[in-house]
Amino acid sequence: MSRYRIAVIPGDGIGVEVTAPTVDLLEHLADRAGFEIAFDHFDWSCARYQETGAMMPPDGLDQIRDHDAILLGAVGWPGVPDHVSLWGLLIPIRRRFQQYVNLRPISVMPGLPGPLRDPGEVDFVVVRENVEGEYSEIGGRFSTGTAQEMAVQEAVFTRAGVTRIVDYAFDLATTRRGHVTSATKSNGIVHTMPFWDEIVRERAERQPSVSWRQEHIDALAAKLVLDPSSFDVIVGSNLFGDILSDLAAAVAGSIGIAPSANLDPERDFPSMFEPVHGSAPDIAGKGIANPIGALWSASMMLDHLGEKRSGDALLAAIRATLADGDVRTPDLGGTATTRELAAAVQEAI
Amino acid sequence: MSRYRIAVIPGDGIGVEVTAPTVDLLEHLADRAGFEIAFDHFDWSCARYQETGAMMPPDGLDQIRDHDAILLGAVGWPGVPDHVSLWGLLIPIRRRFQQYVNLRPISVMPGLPGPLRDPGEVDFVVVRENVEGEYSEIGGRFSTGTAQEMAVQEAVFTRAGVTRIVDYAFDLATTRRGHVTSATKSNGIVHTMPFWDEIVRERAERQPSVSWRQEHIDALAAKLVLDPSSFDVIVGSNLFGDILSDLAAAVAGSIGIAPSANLDPERDFPSMFEPVHGSAPDIAGKGIANPIGALWSASMMLDHLGEKRSGDALLAAIRATLADGDVRTPDLGGTATTRELAAAVQEAI
Ligand SMILES: CC(C)[C@H](C(=O)O)[C@@H](O)C(=O)O
Ligand SMILES: CC(C)[C@H](C(=O)O)[C@@H](O)C(=O)O
Repeated sequence: MSRYRIAVIPGDGIGVEVTAPTVDLLEHLADRAGFEIAFDHFDWSCARYQETGAMMPPDGLDQIRDHDAILLGAVGWPGVPDHVSLWGLLIPIRRRFQQYVNLRPISVMPGLPGPLRDPGEVDFVVVRENVEGEYSEIGGRFSTGTAQEMAVQEAVFTRAGVTRIVDYAFDLATTRRGHVTSATKSNGIVHTMPFWDEIVRERAERQPSVSWRQEHIDALAAKLVLDPSSFDVIVGSNLFGDILSDLAAAVAGSIGIAPSANLDPERDFPSMFEPVHGSAPDIAGKGIANPIGALWSASMMLDHLGEKRSGDALLAAIRATLADGDVRTPDLGGTATTRELAAAVQEAI
Repeated sequence: MSRYRIAVIPGDGIGVEVTAPTVDLLEHLADRAGFEIAFDHFDWSCARYQETGAMMPPDGLDQIRDHDAILLGAVGWPGVPDHVSLWGLLIPIRRRFQQYVNLRPISVMPGLPGPLRDPGEVDFVVVRENVEGEYSEIGGRFSTGTAQEMAVQEAVFTRAGVTRIVDYAFDLATTRRGHVTSATKSNGIVHTMPFWDEIVRERAERQPSVSWRQEHIDALAAKLVLDPSSFDVIVGSNLFGDILSDLAAAVAGSIGIAPSANLDPERDFPSMFEPVHGSAPDIAGKGIANPIGALWSASMMLDHLGEKRSGDALLAAIRATLADGDVRTPDLGGTATTRELAAAVQEAI
């Protein structure tokens, strides 16, 4: 019997509220399919930071490096600067565990109309580079406190880093509709984006069956709104992928339910699964957060663990529950609680 | 009688086609209102680059520095790398002439429905920082040709540069509905964006009647689609402002007609006015490009020159022509030519 050990980091706010029923549902799925799943909980969070001065213990990463996967709720809380909480927890996990692929599937869900008059068939995946690029510790302030003060930030793109994310995107496209769109800004950003384009052009030759194009990030953002059904796989840098995936979720009407996977495709380290939404201080503590983002992320985790049958069953149950539409949290126009919606998904399995 | 000298740079592709009728219409407006306007034409373009190896002559900027304003069509053409054409013409003009404000008004135009089911009342302005930030010459390649190859790019934010764009946005908000949204990414980009936030917080105190909030660029992009009527003035860095203004134009259904102004508010140098659209090689030479972006930009130029009555008349004529809907270029679903649509606007004046 397969056994999995999962590190659970509920984090802050509604992260805690959506993670609890997700763990329950995973246990249910394991019973049903006959595999074993054990959960270790870690209280790493802004609450912990406010008590101890650190988001996680110094040996935090060692404590979870041998787990089969990480399930994360949400990180961030008012009073703790975002760059403190995120660079103290989320970003080190992504980087030290070489989770260089951030995968965000986007599709219009049945029964959730979304903001567009006529979205067409929306079904694509954003493949975001997740460990280098525009987010970096390199840089700082100069002449602080004077009129000459400035801040600089170094974006770092490596050939190895760009190559592997581009290869991942093209490989993924061969299992889908065979088209890649590369997000760039080589007309404005002088050194890194022409480099990115050059590598995309080279690596595209590995997969001659995949067609591809590049679009500048400004035009691409516009096109996501004007013609979202024209995309299959979008590959972008850390920042561009971040912007495009949130935007795409909005276009698909699914910002509150969007899932994400932070993958180390080499499997040297555990991968991490987290809903796209944040800790939502405005509704935290009320028990009304939408658990679909967390559940959908759990379904991606099951796929990654090799339990694809259970992952598919969970995703099908999510779709059926949303399509049915009887049980909805307030963000989807209903009155159900987090627990009630999760229970409805469990029943649909 | 007031006299203005305008430098006209039609540039490439449809840039040439939309600039010609815009110049004619400006002459017509000048006759009508009793001011004088003289145009000097400059053939700076990718065509020039392909002949001479330079987008503009070495003393190009000196040739236009004493003009009252610059009217630009579009820059860029297949075969000339974008970073060559743009850093050889558009970006030096913006930078050397201290056009630190890039202003892009966004509104849903009568008769142009746009992609959103229910956009509400969309009427806001994107104030984009235009001379520093993420676009910079600082950086380069390292270990070229090896497996260790990398490219780095330095983003540079100065206190002076951020302060003046933020002040501009807050001042502008006092003449509108009194709300500013600041685009940030201080949760991901460690050094420059917390610096940006800090300056916004400080400078906001200058205009206590203006309310403001900050949003991370990913969430902000999503909100532009989900709730575009919640914005009044959006202020963002060079890159964020670029992305948001294209996205916003798409949301408003007006990507082909959007105008922009590159302003030196200190008036030490000429400001530059250009449609947001590019040179559009796919339809260039056919005489069917939409001239509204260029005409609307010309209306912003008239405002800037102090000929507000004429600027308003031109904008009103644009609105009336679009609302009327009889004369439309193919991008708006009609069959009119560039000249025909421009003539219709002229008639409506
Ligand atoms: C062409 C490009 C360099 C330019 C920019 O990003 O500044 C364009 O997108 C714009 O918005 O004016
Ligand atoms: C919270 C923030 C640092 C993070 C990111 O930008 O990576 C988030 O927006 C995400 O997309 O996971």
